[in-house]
Amino acid sequence: MTRQSSDHIVLSSHPGAQGQARLHDIHWGKPTAAERGPVIASLTDVGQRNAIGSHAGAYAVYRALAVASGALQRDHRPDLTNTAPAEPIGPHPQWADPDKIVSLDPWGHLVASVFAEHIAAGIDARPTIAVTKAHINMPELKDAIAAGRLQPDGNILSDNGDVRVTKAAIDPVWYLPGIANRFEVKESSLRRALFEQTAGMFPELVTRPDLKVFLPPIGGMTLYFFGDVAKLGKPGTRVACRLHDECNGSDVFGSDICTCRPYLAHGIEVCIEEAQQGGVGLVVYNRKEGRALGEVTKFLVYNARKRQPGGDRAETYFARTECVAGVQDMRFQQLMPDVFHWLGITRIDRWASMSDMKHGALVEAGIEVVERVPIPDGLIPMDARVEMDAKKAAGYFTSDMPAAEDLTLPKGRALDE
Amino acid sequence: MTRQSSDHIVLSSHPGAQGQARLHDIHWGKPTAAERGPVIASLTDVGQRNAIGSHAGAYAVYRALAVASGALQRDHRPDLTNTAPAEPIGPHPQWADPDKIVSLDPWGHLVASVFAEHIAAGIDARPTIAVTKAHINMPELKDAIAAGRLQPDGNILSDNGDVRVTKAAIDPVWYLPGIANRFEVKESSLRRALFEQTAGMFPELVTRPDLKVFLPPIGGMTLYFFGDVAKLGKPGTRVACRLHDECNGSDVFGSDICTCRPYLAHGIEVCIEEAQQGGVGLVVYNRKEGRALGEVTKFLVYNARKRQPGGDRAETYFARTECVAGVQDMRFQQLMPDVFHWLGITRIDRWASMSDMKHGALVEAGIEVVERVPIPDGLIPMDARVEMDAKKAAGYFTSDMPAAEDLTLPKGRALDE
Repeated sequence: MTRQSSDHIVLSSHPGAQGQARLHDIHWGKPTAAERGPVIASLTDVGQRNAIGSHAGAYAVYRALAVASGALQRDHRPDLTNTAPAEPIGPHPQWADPDKIVSLDPWGHLVASVFAEHIAAGIDARPTIAVTKAHINMPELKDAIAAGRLQPDGNILSDNGDVRVTKAAIDPVWYLPGIANRFEVKESSLRRALFEQTAGMFPELVTRPDLKVFLPPIGGMTLYFFGDVAKLGKPGTRVACRLHDECNGSDVFGSDICTCRPYLAHGIEVCIEEAQQGGVGLVVYNRKEGRALGEVTKFLVYNARKRQPGGDRAETYFARTECVAGVQDMRFQQLMPDVFHWLGITRIDRWASMSDMKHGALVEAGIEVVERVPIPDGLIPMDARVEMDAKKAAGYFTSDMPAAEDLTLPKGRALDE
Repeated sequence: MTRQSSDHIVLSSHPGAQGQARLHDIHWGKPTAAERGPVIASLTDVGQRNAIGSHAGAYAVYRALAVASGALQRDHRPDLTNTAPAEPIGPHPQWADPDKIVSLDPWGHLVASVFAEHIAAGIDARPTIAVTKAHINMPELKDAIAAGRLQPDGNILSDNGDVRVTKAAIDPVWYLPGIANRFEVKESSLRRALFEQTAGMFPELVTRPDLKVFLPPIGGMTLYFFGDVAKLGKPGTRVACRLHDECNGSDVFGSDICTCRPYLAHGIEVCIEEAQQGGVGLVVYNRKEGRALGEVTKFLVYNARKRQPGGDRAETYFARTECVAGVQDMRFQQLMPDVFHWLGITRIDRWASMSDMKHGALVEAGIEVVERVPIPDGLIPMDARVEMDAKKAAGYFTSDMPAAEDLTLPKGRALDE
């Protein structure tokens, strides 16, 4: 980081270079906000900072353009009037365990209230989570009403298909020692890889071991709640959940090569049913496009699958990704359970996912999964049979394992079809 | 950047610190790939690099986790067999103008062919664009068929609503002198803001003025083509277009506070019509969630709008964003026209957007817009009237300007409604 100056750039990437002691240490996992202390990652007074990276990191480059072009004053501080969460969430006992939540700030939605005194004293602490309310309407839900699968109740679900939801946006906040533990690597190795393998992003990762908190410039997550959010964390509350990793081509445009949007819509049906019966439904939407490989890699893999000798088939589904990307998947479900701990959830009664990686991560985190709900066969799009067979063969939850010879059949369209 | 070593980290963020001359200079805007040269931003041999940042920058942190955890070999190079574009795009004359395209690499989809000799000689050049084919199916298109607005033709549009598309994913590649020109700032000021206002991302921005190309860690764009892509750039070709900036809450979940998904679906209808009449339809989907402010800020603003004295109304629509974020918008449409230059497009016959900023940027870039197609009134969701009135009053294209007193009326839902 640099200290701002109108004349020259001063690199201050080593401890002590800021010329003053940091006043606000972070004590991750302490039971109260006062003991934990605020995460300060804003840029209006760099001497206050106690974290690496910045808010809304995935958009930090746009923020820089705004300052460079004169559209944004570099010392602007947000007016947080009326922005407080539309529904209370927490605190839950899990917030006081430094190992249970390592990839988000459990106090992130409450910054304006729990750190009000700090802010009044000039500390530029900012929310990393926002909670609001909305009405959503997906054409698939109208179809579910027409087919009699969903019944409008005039509250959660209206006749016209409108659904009342609470929703939360969460930016990532990483506690580096906890992230390193989760991946079973040394913190120093993690920091070095984060620095080197991003082409040198944030030298402070290697020069400032005293800064333990990092706001990575990656997409966060969005939560959609169905039913009464206040019931979460209470022992008797039934919970239904779809945990969904972004797939723009299907989620928005309905591409038929995968089951993403159909499974999402089905998961929302399951969530609405649960909420109508007095439980809580939850959709977790993670910004991890193309298994966190990005869409360019994804489309390169699509071409390689469609053109390979023998056609697009299940037995080579994962191999084609590995040829291009070097790995089959970079989503790292190890961090995924954090959001359930944040919500106080210890048991998921209906889990709308077949992924063995997601299920395994929950079990590892001590969260009970009672029933696994596969996607109904009739919702699988035509070109998505390759994906579905490949995933079942690789260990995804199913009662309908494809035969070995079935995996060799080209079931996907060629590029010119 | 560092040179990789098993023992220690060597900072090499200054020219010459790599201990060897760079062999592959980039000559931006030269008419042939051979003269322009490859952009080398991979990390398998840092001595080759001639750009700042890395591929799929928005996912670079995940890549680092993959290496740290041992899942990915740091020296993995992609096998690009069978990954070539599914449809040819370019070259177009605009590629040879260093001012027309500054935010993407026009040769990005052709890397494996035009730089085949470099790759064979050990240069780790990688695609920044991928072009594939798909079938998409959106429930709204089935509705349009049922309502008689769209007629299936068995080729572009099938009876079941399936639509054949070509699609392209594009990662950003910035030519910094060109970006600075576009924003009318000095290159050194731009570099400094990009470094400082991202909290110190990429010191090379300020220490390596000789490196002119930057792969920023932000989302890119996806293009959906309807009809024959090869017709683009030819004088007689009619083009219809929807340029859409991501809004996950509406695009995926159908939140009714804005017109995003309805306008997108309408734009796709317009694109299909144009393709059926022998032209080309194009949807450009930019990853700029919440006006590039991110979703946490967006939800904070929703709360402030809903709770402000006087209720959610058009006259204070932009002000609430500015209070929280310091600006109304960070999307910077100045860079948006690049993709049209890349496609050889000089005229857009049907432009499905009301935004004055988008329209102004196209005109500024010398691209003619013949007809502007507003969203049909019947498609505007209930809670989105505030947005629509505010935008019309602020200069958005309309034949139906709201009256001044209309802007003061609370038309949006309260949080508890």
